[in-house]
Amino acid sequence: MEIVYLDNSSTTAVIPEAAEAVMRCMTEEYGNPSSLHDVGMKAFVTLKEARETVASALKVSPEEVFFTSGGTEGNNIAVFGTAEKNRRKKGRVVVSAVEHPCVLGPAQKLSDSGFEVVTVRPDSTGRIGREQLEGYITPDTVLVSLMLVNNETGAVQDVAAAAALIKEKGAPALLHCDAVQAFGKLPVEPRKLGVDLLTVSAHKLHGPKGVGAIYIRKGVNLPARIFGGGQEKGMRSGTEPTELIAGFAAAVKALPDTAQTLSRIGSLNARLREGLSQIAGVSVNSPDDALPYVLNFSVAGIRSEVLLRALSADGIYVSAGSACSKGKRSHVLLAQGLSPERIDSAVRVSFSRFSVEGEVDRLLESLKRASASLKRGRR
Amino acid sequence: MEIVYLDNSSTTAVIPEAAEAVMRCMTEEYGNPSSLHDVGMKAFVTLKEARETVASALKVSPEEVFFTSGGTEGNNIAVFGTAEKNRRKKGRVVVSAVEHPCVLGPAQKLSDSGFEVVTVRPDSTGRIGREQLEGYITPDTVLVSLMLVNNETGAVQDVAAAAALIKEKGAPALLHCDAVQAFGKLPVEPRKLGVDLLTVSAHKLHGPKGVGAIYIRKGVNLPARIFGGGQEKGMRSGTEPTELIAGFAAAVKALPDTAQTLSRIGSLNARLREGLSQIAGVSVNSPDDALPYVLNFSVAGIRSEVLLRALSADGIYVSAGSACSKGKRSHVLLAQGLSPERIDSAVRVSFSRFSVEGEVDRLLESLKRASASLKRGRR
Repeated sequence: MEIVYLDNSSTTAVIPEAAEAVMRCMTEEYGNPSSLHDVGMKAFVTLKEARETVASALKVSPEEVFFTSGGTEGNNIAVFGTAEKNRRKKGRVVVSAVEHPCVLGPAQKLSDSGFEVVTVRPDSTGRIGREQLEGYITPDTVLVSLMLVNNETGAVQDVAAAAALIKEKGAPALLHCDAVQAFGKLPVEPRKLGVDLLTVSAHKLHGPKGVGAIYIRKGVNLPARIFGGGQEKGMRSGTEPTELIAGFAAAVKALPDTAQTLSRIGSLNARLREGLSQIAGVSVNSPDDALPYVLNFSVAGIRSEVLLRALSADGIYVSAGSACSKGKRSHVLLAQGLSPERIDSAVRVSFSRFSVEGEVDRLLESLKRASASLKRGRR
Repeated sequence: MEIVYLDNSSTTAVIPEAAEAVMRCMTEEYGNPSSLHDVGMKAFVTLKEARETVASALKVSPEEVFFTSGGTEGNNIAVFGTAEKNRRKKGRVVVSAVEHPCVLGPAQKLSDSGFEVVTVRPDSTGRIGREQLEGYITPDTVLVSLMLVNNETGAVQDVAAAAALIKEKGAPALLHCDAVQAFGKLPVEPRKLGVDLLTVSAHKLHGPKGVGAIYIRKGVNLPARIFGGGQEKGMRSGTEPTELIAGFAAAVKALPDTAQTLSRIGSLNARLREGLSQIAGVSVNSPDDALPYVLNFSVAGIRSEVLLRALSADGIYVSAGSACSKGKRSHVLLAQGLSPERIDSAVRVSFSRFSVEGEVDRLLESLKRASASLKRGRR
């Protein structure tokens, strides 16, 4: 039985181009980019070219791209780095309630150390825009962190509105954007978004796990958080994992045209929504204009784990909320004001650009069967 | 021309077993270990088994092993984590002068934030033992950090002596050991060494770059430094890079018998020393009882870069000091009290277990030729 993997917001399969780049750097071009000899120089060139590839995809300068060990580290660097810059005078930190735990966790630590951390709730569909942000951004705000695409619902946030508000209020705030779920799916351009800091990750776009990048706008002097050999211009010490960075770059290079792919994934999403509308008790938890790669819904009366197990038995893999919140009730759906019952029944389907109609159909069939038998079982 | 890579303390080529494990986890078993479905479960099992493999090599419990993005992050976690534990009362931090920059850098930051950081100098051969440490460890010492094998000279430090002194002084200090250059080459057993924290890295033992582990003795509650999804029992958030972790474990599994390999590398080292003794102006900067994998020496009157370039032209790759200190004068050799001229001429040869006699001979030939012609050139 061919598996149907629809949990691509958790992680993706590495494409051959990226896997081969990883392989090459492990076994042939294995040098340390800091070594002065030819083997090191080759690794240095790989690193340089990879930085150019990622920078070009983000339409920024290579000097503004710093490789990290992934999205979590990138987001930690952004939040803690900004705090370190403001460690004497402190100030306000504004985060959305639907950020990933790797933004909310660091924000919580800042709150413990004297910053005023305020959390912006989304509207009932999970979106955050000007209306939600207004009033939160004050002239003493030092950081605003708003993700571009929510990992659990696909909600696309109005990051540009946050940038505009910072300007209007005359706040000294840096604007950070977690673009981990957006990069490779939407055009992600820090300059257009008006952000100072932006994080991306390779393993959400068919690159390897353990690598990502943070864009730091030129002129923003962000203090480092890991110290040592001074790699990444002192921003992130540690031997650069050239194999991962090359794999990341290969995955970025292989990204298809965004608009065309979005439209295709949009059809899959519509097909899924149409199918779901025919299953009794289904409510959709994603906004209508969410990124079509993600669809979150609940089947009334069936707990997520139970449904997941039934789908899994059919070789279909989806998730209950995010992989990172294993076991905890989704803070994202809670922030949307959904009932505990609905949250406990939530299921997230997340496509990749390789997803096809047949997979949606198999999911729908399995869902119909499972929901009928599980509901019968409950009587 | 077959290359002769003798810069294995910088980084190593990944062995096929490890590269295959990386490949498998990228393309087939690509799940997120936190995902509840079968694909995730498979990744979870890979992670669990890898942890057991690393734990077993260190003769510790799997619960005491936390995966990191490498040696640098591990050492940062050890130093900053211990500081965070003691952030109210502060105290003394003792580090050796020959630690890697990823221990010295964090220590410098602690010094800026109110800790009393003292630096222990080695003897003239680069070794640190009871005699050097005595007097530095006081009852208010909260951390002692001493590497097991120095990356530039191969000097083996008396970590057990540090453990004994901490006990004798009744210091509350945690003992941290950077075992990055030792693991896979010497028996590295945290319990025998009497350390509380110990870091290792995969890419120094023919595993991939971008992954390592920190041993945290059971009962030591080290605060985390990266926050998010709570992976690694909250110690190190971020999607676990299963492909790297599996590659690391495969590299560890492939490690040969330490004693036998040490003796073989000992012969290579002796052959190199014997050959060097016949070249005019060579002085050895490594102690006699250094780990035989590393030999640091200077050729009087020839600057490192110049010699490196000459060797490189013959396809022979060694380094000047560590790859991480690119361009800066070695703090390790400075601490040994060597003259600036001798430091500026220092060259490090570092073997791997795959190094062979023929490579030593080619290095020696090339060295003889280069040193003769370069010295002639200077007249």
